[in-house]
Amino acid sequence: MDFWFDFASTYSYPAAMRVEREAARAGVPVRWRAFLLGPIFAEQQGITDSPFNANPVRGRYMWRDLERICARHGLPWCRPSEFPRRSVLAAKVACAAEAEGAAWLPDFCRGVFTANFALDRDIDDREVLSGLLAGLGQDGGAALARADAPGGPLRARVEEARRLGLFGAPTFAVGEELFFGQDRLQEALEWAVRA
Amino acid sequence: MDFWFDFASTYSYPAAMRVEREAARAGVPVRWRAFLLGPIFAEQQGITDSPFNANPVRGRYMWRDLERICARHGLPWCRPSEFPRRSVLAAKVACAAEAEGAAWLPDFCRGVFTANFALDRDIDDREVLSGLLAGLGQDGGAALARADAPGGPLRARVEEARRLGLFGAPTFAVGEELFFGQDRLQEALEWAVRA
Repeated sequence: MDFWFDFASTYSYPAAMRVEREAARAGVPVRWRAFLLGPIFAEQQGITDSPFNANPVRGRYMWRDLERICARHGLPWCRPSEFPRRSVLAAKVACAAEAEGAAWLPDFCRGVFTANFALDRDIDDREVLSGLLAGLGQDGGAALARADAPGGPLRARVEEARRLGLFGAPTFAVGEELFFGQDRLQEALEWAVRA
Repeated sequence: MDFWFDFASTYSYPAAMRVEREAARAGVPVRWRAFLLGPIFAEQQGITDSPFNANPVRGRYMWRDLERICARHGLPWCRPSEFPRRSVLAAKVACAAEAEGAAWLPDFCRGVFTANFALDRDIDDREVLSGLLAGLGQDGGAALARADAPGGPLRARVEEARRLGLFGAPTFAVGEELFFGQDRLQEALEWAVRA
């Protein structure tokens, strides 16, 4: 099962924190696929902000809903003081890590989500990301430099998201079959088990 | 628990077909609250069409998703040849029925949803609605005339939806607490049981 997410996406946070345990229980391997919602929202909706900011009524619901979802799953939660945060650099690190087959990718992703949505830290800050990488036994500066080199895989990743027909995050994909939303994780896993 | 729906809303269909049985199992009484998404979408998103038409990528997902959801719950499904269908008259009948305390309201609602999403019939057609009402032992013509009289309760209903902060359907409301989406029915019921 492919787990598509954006580090800036609120509903991706509980999904990221739960996906590996739930998938392991179902016996389904997970691929972590960071991408960017910004270009997708711009193309499909003509907006340059989060849809939750563009529609404040829906935004108000989302913040309350996230609080409830995190309480339900026992996840720490702190509404970020900046939203949406710029997630390009963190996504580049995740794409580079996947390309290198790095075993620390899931831990890195959970660390970035926790920084954004539980610790209210700026995930576009190189110090924050270096610190996370160092905590995973990596040379943070070197990893960031590799990830940020021109011609990296993030552009192709967003193109892949487009081809697959993604329009939001999190999305779970089993082959061409998409399941949109954190609340569809179990259904996606059941589909993967049957497939 | 209040069940807010629009007869034109695709995801409201499986919710409408399941809500009463699931709520009865949980011991939670349900109020059926028909409203109109059109004015809400126009105000909040500046669109005069369904968001699923305005964003065809999301629309393509929705049609596939509905097919899967209906299969999962054993519900008949036929993609309607017209979407979204005009739901004003059916909503007026539902509002009038609620105001009159009519016991046939849930059956009428399921009938309209079935007409739209399983039988591909025009739910704005007075013959279709009269036929449904007759099947429930009502005088269809008289019920439509009462429902369609000026100054009916639908306008106030949409105003109530606005006040409550609705932005889509189906939405389950337990007091001020909203749960958006057909996949949140169980969570809303659990909330109602605890409340």
